[in-house]
Amino acid sequence: MGHLRQKPKPETRAAAFRKGFAVISRDVDTPKQGGGETPTPAPFSFRLLASDGHARRGEIATAHGPVATPAFMAVGTQATVKGLTSEAVRATGADIVLANTYHLMLRPGAERVAALGGLHRFMHWPWAILTDSGGFQVMSLAELRKVEDKGVTFRSHLDGATVELSPERAIEIQNLLGADIAMQLDECLALPAPRPELERAMRLSLAWAERSKRAFEAAPKERALFGIVQGGDDLQLRMASARSLVAVGFHGYAIGGLAVGEPQEVMLRTVAEVAPALPADRPRYLMGVGTPEDLVEAVARGIDMFDCVLPTRNGRHGLAFTRFGPINLKNARHAGDPRPLDEGSACPAARDYSRAYLHHLVKANEMLGAILLTTVNLSYYQELMAGMRAAIAAGTFAEFRAAASEGWARGDVASA
Amino acid sequence: MGHLRQKPKPETRAAAFRKGFAVISRDVDTPKQGGGETPTPAPFSFRLLASDGHARRGEIATAHGPVATPAFMAVGTQATVKGLTSEAVRATGADIVLANTYHLMLRPGAERVAALGGLHRFMHWPWAILTDSGGFQVMSLAELRKVEDKGVTFRSHLDGATVELSPERAIEIQNLLGADIAMQLDECLALPAPRPELERAMRLSLAWAERSKRAFEAAPKERALFGIVQGGDDLQLRMASARSLVAVGFHGYAIGGLAVGEPQEVMLRTVAEVAPALPADRPRYLMGVGTPEDLVEAVARGIDMFDCVLPTRNGRHGLAFTRFGPINLKNARHAGDPRPLDEGSACPAARDYSRAYLHHLVKANEMLGAILLTTVNLSYYQELMAGMRAAIAAGTFAEFRAAASEGWARGDVASA
Repeated sequence: MGHLRQKPKPETRAAAFRKGFAVISRDVDTPKQGGGETPTPAPFSFRLLASDGHARRGEIATAHGPVATPAFMAVGTQATVKGLTSEAVRATGADIVLANTYHLMLRPGAERVAALGGLHRFMHWPWAILTDSGGFQVMSLAELRKVEDKGVTFRSHLDGATVELSPERAIEIQNLLGADIAMQLDECLALPAPRPELERAMRLSLAWAERSKRAFEAAPKERALFGIVQGGDDLQLRMASARSLVAVGFHGYAIGGLAVGEPQEVMLRTVAEVAPALPADRPRYLMGVGTPEDLVEAVARGIDMFDCVLPTRNGRHGLAFTRFGPINLKNARHAGDPRPLDEGSACPAARDYSRAYLHHLVKANEMLGAILLTTVNLSYYQELMAGMRAAIAAGTFAEFRAAASEGWARGDVASA
Repeated sequence: MGHLRQKPKPETRAAAFRKGFAVISRDVDTPKQGGGETPTPAPFSFRLLASDGHARRGEIATAHGPVATPAFMAVGTQATVKGLTSEAVRATGADIVLANTYHLMLRPGAERVAALGGLHRFMHWPWAILTDSGGFQVMSLAELRKVEDKGVTFRSHLDGATVELSPERAIEIQNLLGADIAMQLDECLALPAPRPELERAMRLSLAWAERSKRAFEAAPKERALFGIVQGGDDLQLRMASARSLVAVGFHGYAIGGLAVGEPQEVMLRTVAEVAPALPADRPRYLMGVGTPEDLVEAVARGIDMFDCVLPTRNGRHGLAFTRFGPINLKNARHAGDPRPLDEGSACPAARDYSRAYLHHLVKANEMLGAILLTTVNLSYYQELMAGMRAAIAAGTFAEFRAAASEGWARGDVASA
């Protein structure tokens, strides 16, 4: 499991972080002068560095630094990964975070973020950012929504105001935020859903994909737009969606509408069918997934990118993800346990605090409990991704997958 | 204002922090072997290094590192300064934190903390810790309390269980926690209060002081016990209390029962009378105080140590303390303000984030808002203490006091 431990040294990260902030400053502060040198941001690109079976090791270049793939994106819904400073997020090993267009368009507003220099500067995160299109949250959070061909109308969950979101407006908002990777507006259904409904939503998402692409032509050239494959658990619809999106042409392709109620095997079967239908030279992003096992199994089927609230949300609720499976710190058995969560971890939060202390913090509803467990979980997720990347490069992904699975099955060992 | 900026470099602090943790490990891990060297912890001591008027610059030595005075102690009620890791607390410039005996005796329990290696190890804080006696919280938080000569009986605010706290048990608990500085059990009244009540509580506190001292004889020799001057706003009672406590003899002396409802001038007058009656070679601690102005004015009257929830609690509620007075980040005027709170601050949280972002976090009820503002406030408090220490040493305390006061009076300047 030595490859699980490959992290840059703290000094290196800190220096890199400072360099990263120099990038933000350049974005915002440096007026482009006629006589001077105008730095050209690196254009978005994806290089496939190695394969092992269907598993892929790659690198995405963005104007805000490289993203090693397979990559996990922590969710920073309201321009903050809940409970962590951006330095702390970076220290977990993150190259990229996700921010939610739906939340940010309502508060503080995309135009306001743009006026303040863009989302990277706003949230003091100089590395890559992907924004979703807002579609998923409109479906799950907003009230009185009406889906039409032109777009979706809904009431804000904050103040009840009526808001319209079209494919074009979703792109405009993401451009105002300054996302390195923007997502098309799509319609995502919960599963199970009847086939006609799945087909209608898939066709609508496809039409919106084309309009999104046209709208995105005005975006700065270094940024990327991803299309989203829909079609629910119907493989025929999924393949039709994938083929049509590829014909339109995007910088990358997401598989949406999974992890929305279906069994894991249905999700993995869909991924296994759809991934090979997507271009090998573009990143593939499985949206909203998942558990550590989901990540490994989806990488085994050709996925390069993930986002999920599990490590952050569960961390806030007392659950730690570790090499030996999840550990519920609320459980009274930890109350007197002097052991750290994982003394072999590269994450200080997993090494420096006893389970007894974490239990105490969780029971006492102390912020620090949420902070430490969020840190532990994101670090473990990043460690898992780094382990997969190293294993794919070394051609030992099968062994890594078996070892990871064995660790989770072993489970947490009770105190002696 | 150059002396406001004197902070060790981050590298130095980090190295010192690691050394500090080696101290924790030594406390707990190293069995005392017959043939080997037994490290003797430094005994508690206080050195007066300089005076400027009544203001004093000193240093307390403890088994967990030195405490430069005048010192501000952040409040870590439940074995955590709310929202900050111990590394982050240290980075604000703190040498010492306060923990609450009342909360910790109820959860997780003093015996449990002792079994886990003591409070320093439990909360991963290798530096000095002062614990209060629990008396103040019994009076303010617990229900159905009964105060008798033998001690106080109350119902836990957590589960309603009946708990007894005597002067002897308060010392036992603080020894189990492993506090570098323990406080005697006292009775603290809210002001205004009738004189007979003030006198009764002062006499009771005095009797408890003597019993506390006897009970403390069993404590490890490197630890310290402070007596607490009571007597409310009655100067005669205060002086009687101070004289009697000095006759008993303690490592340091606290002034309790202030900042409990009286006007600032009453508090400062009491401090001005009581402080000179306390031995010059022992630290003087004003409990539960205060605002930045309170701190400067109390130092001017001879106080060496403070604790207060203001910087942490107000930080959680959207208020920043700065050189230019308090700034309420909830206020809508900050929504589009790109300026940091104080670009001249040594605290990254005050420099790296716009007021607009802090406003957004506070409005969105994001943990990071509380975290950043708590960091800003504790850093400002520590900067203020460091500034006072430097000024006293330089003989320029009067100028410092005037300049600080001028900054607060100037107020926060609105965005252009």
